[in-house]
Amino acid sequence: MDRDLFQRLQHGFGFGGWIPRGVDTAAEIVPGLSGLEGDRFWMAQALLAAMEGIGRSNPNPTVGAVFVRDGRMIARGATLRYGDLHAERVALRDADPELIRGSTLYVTLEPCARPGKQPPCTEALLTAQPLRCVVGATDPHPKVAGDGIRQLRAAGVEVTVGVLGAECTMWHFPFLASLTLKRPVLIGKWAQTLDGHLADDTGRSQWISGPKSRAYTHWLRQKYDMLLVGMGTVLADAPSLTVRDAAQPHHRHPHKCVFDPFGRFAQLSDPHLEALKRGLEPQGAQLFLMVQQGFWQEPSWWSSWRSLAVVVMIEAQETWSEHVARLSEVYARTCGVPLQSIMVEGGPQLLTQLLREQLLDALHVFVRAGILGGTRNRIGRLDVRPGEDPLAVNPSRSLMDRDDYQLLATYQIEDDVVLECLHRRHAIGFVS
Amino acid sequence: MDRDLFQRLQHGFGFGGWIPRGVDTAAEIVPGLSGLEGDRFWMAQALLAAMEGIGRSNPNPTVGAVFVRDGRMIARGATLRYGDLHAERVALRDADPELIRGSTLYVTLEPCARPGKQPPCTEALLTAQPLRCVVGATDPHPKVAGDGIRQLRAAGVEVTVGVLGAECTMWHFPFLASLTLKRPVLIGKWAQTLDGHLADDTGRSQWISGPKSRAYTHWLRQKYDMLLVGMGTVLADAPSLTVRDAAQPHHRHPHKCVFDPFGRFAQLSDPHLEALKRGLEPQGAQLFLMVQQGFWQEPSWWSSWRSLAVVVMIEAQETWSEHVARLSEVYARTCGVPLQSIMVEGGPQLLTQLLREQLLDALHVFVRAGILGGTRNRIGRLDVRPGEDPLAVNPSRSLMDRDDYQLLATYQIEDDVVLECLHRRHAIGFVS
Repeated sequence: MDRDLFQRLQHGFGFGGWIPRGVDTAAEIVPGLSGLEGDRFWMAQALLAAMEGIGRSNPNPTVGAVFVRDGRMIARGATLRYGDLHAERVALRDADPELIRGSTLYVTLEPCARPGKQPPCTEALLTAQPLRCVVGATDPHPKVAGDGIRQLRAAGVEVTVGVLGAECTMWHFPFLASLTLKRPVLIGKWAQTLDGHLADDTGRSQWISGPKSRAYTHWLRQKYDMLLVGMGTVLADAPSLTVRDAAQPHHRHPHKCVFDPFGRFAQLSDPHLEALKRGLEPQGAQLFLMVQQGFWQEPSWWSSWRSLAVVVMIEAQETWSEHVARLSEVYARTCGVPLQSIMVEGGPQLLTQLLREQLLDALHVFVRAGILGGTRNRIGRLDVRPGEDPLAVNPSRSLMDRDDYQLLATYQIEDDVVLECLHRRHAIGFVS
Repeated sequence: MDRDLFQRLQHGFGFGGWIPRGVDTAAEIVPGLSGLEGDRFWMAQALLAAMEGIGRSNPNPTVGAVFVRDGRMIARGATLRYGDLHAERVALRDADPELIRGSTLYVTLEPCARPGKQPPCTEALLTAQPLRCVVGATDPHPKVAGDGIRQLRAAGVEVTVGVLGAECTMWHFPFLASLTLKRPVLIGKWAQTLDGHLADDTGRSQWISGPKSRAYTHWLRQKYDMLLVGMGTVLADAPSLTVRDAAQPHHRHPHKCVFDPFGRFAQLSDPHLEALKRGLEPQGAQLFLMVQQGFWQEPSWWSSWRSLAVVVMIEAQETWSEHVARLSEVYARTCGVPLQSIMVEGGPQLLTQLLREQLLDALHVFVRAGILGGTRNRIGRLDVRPGEDPLAVNPSRSLMDRDDYQLLATYQIEDDVVLECLHRRHAIGFVS
């Protein structure tokens, strides 16, 4: 992927779509839209349609599609649940075939070209006969990989590719990048003050960021398959890790994973467990517990959790890449679909470990313009155990590493600034 | 000042005006302008005119004025050097009086109403007879304070106040706020990684931010009367602290002040002195050296610096408020005009001391999405001397303090995000 392409993101567009819409669906004004005209305006409408299906179709990409004729939108749709209709067929379902013939289709991702759980979209399109098809991002999936575009062109449909390409690629990032990496993408999310603190030392501070930033976080939780937190965060905050405060619609709660190498699950009390239980089956999510070999022992509360929770055994000497591989394997076996994305919501120790191992593919960082001070809960710094050399644990890295992440988008949400960043390994090559 | 007003800043507008123009005057597209219409569009033109005079007129405010008739700009101007014409007269100077009669004047600050070094602007306006006058911010100066508006209204000119009021107030912030505070405003400027580091531990890192962020910093240097750095920064970086890389035009180099309580000036070598000398008289700037009583002793290089540099004696037990009062007094005596603003460019120790004493009125913070690590050069943390308790020197503050600063504007400059923040003491009351 052309690096420059990513730098021309429309203002206000993040990994979760148009950020103002992720905070409040009723938001009439989406700032980045005001300057868009022609193909770009209509592709933005396809992205807005996709946003309405956020997370719903995983592991299928949540595609958005609109048909336009004579400057009017005549049909729109987003991909339904996994196994059900794709965006193009959703849009076509209720549309007047006479109008569709001769229209232009705007679709965020290349239409699929070979049968999966559904017949190929190209088949439906060749029947419907739009004059023109405008594609946001191409689909590197082995079942597509340019065939969608070739089939349409062969049938005489004019095809344009790459309109709002960066936005469409960002929207489909977990799907696209996990295909290429052959592992789930890991996305770091945290809120910090300018001095890098995620909380104060007293443990009384629960939220650094404001209510609208939290709404955007909840919006994002639907997009990613799983949330990962450390057991320290669970013990400190008793988080429920569900989707509550986001803009409508809500399609799913994320699966949850707690990193608990030394088996501190035994310390969980009823309020912790009650909070953790929210959003689990029958509401769709499961709990994964990552525990080191030798530290697993069924806790007293386990009997009622057998259908809700799964233990993932990890080894002390493994890297995080290996932990993630184990987790993906257990997830695929448990849920029957591949794990494409994990949003890591903290705490600072866990996030810092993953940053140090260069494993976070993308970041949502909320920065509050304040100085909190303190000694713990700071990003970029690992706790030093007695006897360890602080400088060896926390070396100063060479300045080149400041360039690990590319800034794709930034947006002011009340008194917070969200920075949306992509690891530079993705700047080239993950999609055409 | 209404707090909400400050939250409706046009995208891309910072303390230095439209940030893209501060980086590159040739920038055709100023994003925030695209959505402006009517009075707001023309006031933006007045602000762009003001930007062309950045820093030139201090201690007079650098006002911008445009006259508009039948949807066309027929005259424009910005205040000239101190003692010379104000913006309104600059615009009128070359304009056709016939066209001006019946036009609308857009002016970023209320026209002055009583004679100073120039006759009052209202006099010129009442002769020129525009139909209407649109004012950005009102002027609390005792010689104006609403009289400008009253005189115009009394003469039958229709007056509208507060169009792009937040932007105009931000543009004139040093002038307006120093009037109210009766001291210079202090503005912190630094560039940091996400973990709050301004440099790495090796001292090899000179710049965290990219070239365009540095161009914006140089642009801002013209706006503020003085730059303040610690002697540690001078010894480490040998900075010249001049305006070099900013967008044109360049009107002045800032005065420089080095905080050197323990008299480390004796360690300065020729390269340090050469760099420091740039921009000093005859180019207009002077050097101020803040030294504690008992640590001042004429260094070997002093003989050739007598006309360029002034020593400001400070006391060991003073607060920074008292230091600033002493500095202002010496500045006024030396330069013959009041000191309205000081931009503090580091290092982290000096900035942190000022933050702790709640003395920074505004901030320009450039954030780079990287993690640098290390133990020194971090914002929000003071060095601990042998025998001191680290927790006593660097306590964890309560979370409420995260709200010390209000975020007024944020803007992406290449891979950096600039956060422009105002201390909450200014959120109410510093101007109508």
